[in-house]
Amino acid sequence: MSRNNFFEKKVEFLTLKQVLEITDSRLNGEFDLNLKIFDINTLQNASQNQISFLNSGRYSVQLSTSKAGFCLIEEKYATKSPAGTILLINKNPYYAYAQIAQSFYKQKDTEFVSDKNRLNYQENNLAIIHNSAVIGKEVKIGSGALIGKEVKIGDGTIIGPNAVIMDNCVIGKNCIINALTAISFAIIGDNCIIHSGVKIGQDGFGFAHNMGVNHKIIQLGSVIIGNDVEIGASSCIDRGAIEDTVISQGVKIDNLVQIAHNVIIGQGTVIAGCSAIAGSTRIGKFVQIGGACNIAGHINIGDGVKIAGASGVMRDVAPMQIIGGCPAIDFRQWQRLNAKLAAMAKLHLKASSDTVN
Amino acid sequence: MSRNNFFEKKVEFLTLKQVLEITDSRLNGEFDLNLKIFDINTLQNASQNQISFLNSGRYSVQLSTSKAGFCLIEEKYATKSPAGTILLINKNPYYAYAQIAQSFYKQKDTEFVSDKNRLNYQENNLAIIHNSAVIGKEVKIGSGALIGKEVKIGDGTIIGPNAVIMDNCVIGKNCIINALTAISFAIIGDNCIIHSGVKIGQDGFGFAHNMGVNHKIIQLGSVIIGNDVEIGASSCIDRGAIEDTVISQGVKIDNLVQIAHNVIIGQGTVIAGCSAIAGSTRIGKFVQIGGACNIAGHINIGDGVKIAGASGVMRDVAPMQIIGGCPAIDFRQWQRLNAKLAAMAKLHLKASSDTVN
Amino acid sequence: MSRNNFFEKKVEFLTLKQVLEITDSRLNGEFDLNLKIFDINTLQNASQNQISFLNSGRYSVQLSTSKAGFCLIEEKYATKSPAGTILLINKNPYYAYAQIAQSFYKQKDTEFVSDKNRLNYQENNLAIIHNSAVIGKEVKIGSGALIGKEVKIGDGTIIGPNAVIMDNCVIGKNCIINALTAISFAIIGDNCIIHSGVKIGQDGFGFAHNMGVNHKIIQLGSVIIGNDVEIGASSCIDRGAIEDTVISQGVKIDNLVQIAHNVIIGQGTVIAGCSAIAGSTRIGKFVQIGGACNIAGHINIGDGVKIAGASGVMRDVAPMQIIGGCPAIDFRQWQRLNAKLAAMAKLHLKASSDTVN
Repeated sequence: MSRNNFFEKKVEFLTLKQVLEITDSRLNGEFDLNLKIFDINTLQNASQNQISFLNSGRYSVQLSTSKAGFCLIEEKYATKSPAGTILLINKNPYYAYAQIAQSFYKQKDTEFVSDKNRLNYQENNLAIIHNSAVIGKEVKIGSGALIGKEVKIGDGTIIGPNAVIMDNCVIGKNCIINALTAISFAIIGDNCIIHSGVKIGQDGFGFAHNMGVNHKIIQLGSVIIGNDVEIGASSCIDRGAIEDTVISQGVKIDNLVQIAHNVIIGQGTVIAGCSAIAGSTRIGKFVQIGGACNIAGHINIGDGVKIAGASGVMRDVAPMQIIGGCPAIDFRQWQRLNAKLAAMAKLHLKASSDTVN
Repeated sequence: MSRNNFFEKKVEFLTLKQVLEITDSRLNGEFDLNLKIFDINTLQNASQNQISFLNSGRYSVQLSTSKAGFCLIEEKYATKSPAGTILLINKNPYYAYAQIAQSFYKQKDTEFVSDKNRLNYQENNLAIIHNSAVIGKEVKIGSGALIGKEVKIGDGTIIGPNAVIMDNCVIGKNCIINALTAISFAIIGDNCIIHSGVKIGQDGFGFAHNMGVNHKIIQLGSVIIGNDVEIGASSCIDRGAIEDTVISQGVKIDNLVQIAHNVIIGQGTVIAGCSAIAGSTRIGKFVQIGGACNIAGHINIGDGVKIAGASGVMRDVAPMQIIGGCPAIDFRQWQRLNAKLAAMAKLHLKASSDTVN
Repeated sequence: MSRNNFFEKKVEFLTLKQVLEITDSRLNGEFDLNLKIFDINTLQNASQNQISFLNSGRYSVQLSTSKAGFCLIEEKYATKSPAGTILLINKNPYYAYAQIAQSFYKQKDTEFVSDKNRLNYQENNLAIIHNSAVIGKEVKIGSGALIGKEVKIGDGTIIGPNAVIMDNCVIGKNCIINALTAISFAIIGDNCIIHSGVKIGQDGFGFAHNMGVNHKIIQLGSVIIGNDVEIGASSCIDRGAIEDTVISQGVKIDNLVQIAHNVIIGQGTVIAGCSAIAGSTRIGKFVQIGGACNIAGHINIGDGVKIAGASGVMRDVAPMQIIGGCPAIDFRQWQRLNAKLAAMAKLHLKASSDTVN
């Protein structure tokens, strides 16, 4: 968890009483209002002194095995919670979570260059480098690039012209970070190639709808990128909401690919251009994803799966399956379905063209 | 209409004679060739001393109620025009419009930094700021950012490193304009978040095909963005052709989304990543558009519509409908159709695999 | 072939013995191990003293007519090779090719700005320009832009703020290269408009999978762009693998379009936003490609073809066809198929809703 790199806690803890007030929740039973809540977390990972939330009935399995000490929840799901969890009943637990997350955390100040801190930066061969940045040996940094506060860059890495590496990021050895990349909230391994215009670490697309307004949810995760990863031009990788977005070792991603928050991609997986992976989906190892595929959020794609180009994957896929189509089905079935539909299109033209139009 | 921010008229008016000559059109009747034409406009908004055009038979309804004093039109549609409109008969009215628009307007000179005007710019903590720019209080501007001529930036707004805000743009209060954004021809409200690499205000994809050449049509509109709007990394919003592209208050747009020229998006609408909205389409209020949706041009999507991810919307959609598929149909019907097709794919595999391939 | 602009040969030639050792191949017969191999090339273009490779059985036609003196090939295809070609038998010819390409060529050093060469660059009105660059008359270059070593820019061209034009690129006359573009390995004609954030010339998505690792294949081609081309914001054009990626005169490409390596696009073709063209596909002249289309790799689209928006094209398309759907079929058939499927969706709802779910 690299949260401490990029965020700081505003308070050590909140009392149960404070959380009830901030979120306008009520208790499902009698409990000591002075109980201390030290952090927010997911249902899977929350511990006894942390608070989580149930956003939808589809996560009731995670709830039933959760070790969370506290949980924001709608009344209708209250019966499904484990015995040890104190329930905070709320009509909109996701929005309540957003409020609590914001109460616990704030993003560390981005220093920027300003009158007050101009002397913190040096201009080095036309690049702008914060004095606190740790730059390895044989590093080349292009003109106009910005290297922010406490950034670490490994030996032999190249940073292209006008790239922007925001505060506290870590980049490994022998990487090529091309021109005009924007990297924030990210820990990047060795030997990675990040092509021009890649955007890594912006906050994910997370809103809690409440009373006609979409409230932004503070995105507290990072982007963790393993060794030997390549990411194509203009692709985007959002940082995680609570935990991290993870791109494992040896993953190769083509141009204009969207990786949403909390996605986890296993080792050696290859993703061709213009594909999009929605939030919280897990992609296995050595998966092959064709161009322009769309993969829904909150699903699991098993190891070794192959997905034909332009497919839309809406459900979990077992390991080693070959699939295609939208919604994606078994590849061979999809090919035959296409043949059948093509035949139907021709037949229809002859037989019933007058009656349909 | 913010056209005057970004364009200037080359002539106060053109005479009917001049327009006939420039466009190689002929009149449908006898009229005073010295009549003055003061501007171009859409069929809906043109007034008595303005000229419009009919590009396709599908707009003949707009033509029939138009108050335009003059209209470029193909001969075959001449009978459908209102009585008060003087018709200029032309084989290619769209190209003729392109010629007239270019005759009336030119983009204001982009000053840039050059030998002649270097002193117009100051370097302020490594950002480049035009002396005429109006910068609010507590504004932070990143290194390498360019703030162009007569740009206005509201109090508390942050402009990221290497962002480019071109001449005459207006950005409201408390906005976050992230690194490496390019903003031109745009008026942006308060409290907006524009993520890294967003491109706003480039001219729309408008060409008039004539004699084997695609002629560029000058794009005279702007991009108008309301308060509380968020736009995801690497998304693109083109400016309007004649009127403006409009993103209303509270709209949230994810990464890698394409908004073409003249699109109007209503309040509170949410658009997930990798979706594309083609030109001149109107999206209602509080619409929810899933990821990787493609929405055709020149259609209307009603308020409160929900569109499943990876859908392709080809037609108008009534308010509050839930739709899915490509072409999109009623969501429930689409789900059942998918089940039916999946069954057909399996059946086919057993029964007729030999005969089809 | 503009390879010499951007790459340099590391050796004049390799002997057959060296190639066998580097690639761990064996000969299919007895030949002089001192034979000299001077270059790598495609099957179509390789000559007597060059080496090519057969990556898949689908290219056996190209093999049968190849003039290549040497060919890396799997044993199972050995019988299909022409008489004059010396075969190097290898289990993974694509990976073997990758090894040989890397042995022959290296990318010319990107100079960058550094302590050693800072004096090679001048800061000219806030742009950074290499002393060896050849800049035409009346050229405007925005602040923060980088013009690399031996770049040539024609008269009247505008380079936007923070654009990055890497070493050895050539840009014609009267072009507009907008802000925040990254251009490398490219030769661009006259009167082109490159919108903000376009990425041209990054290496294509080419990997040779061997023993569980995806090995990068050096991409030795360039991007060749004709006159009067327009490329929309944030679009990406990869350079070729062996030969060039070619965008012919008058092509108009909208925003967020992906053009993969080796694609060849004919004169006057128009591609709407968010479309993707996979590697090695050839698009004819005056083709019209709607928005959000996905076109598979290694296929041919004939002249004058029209493709409806959101289509997926999986196969060759004969000239002048109008197609739609995914997989794309005849447009009229597709429309009727859609009507039939929509009817089926409704019917199904009434008749068999209980039995299916």
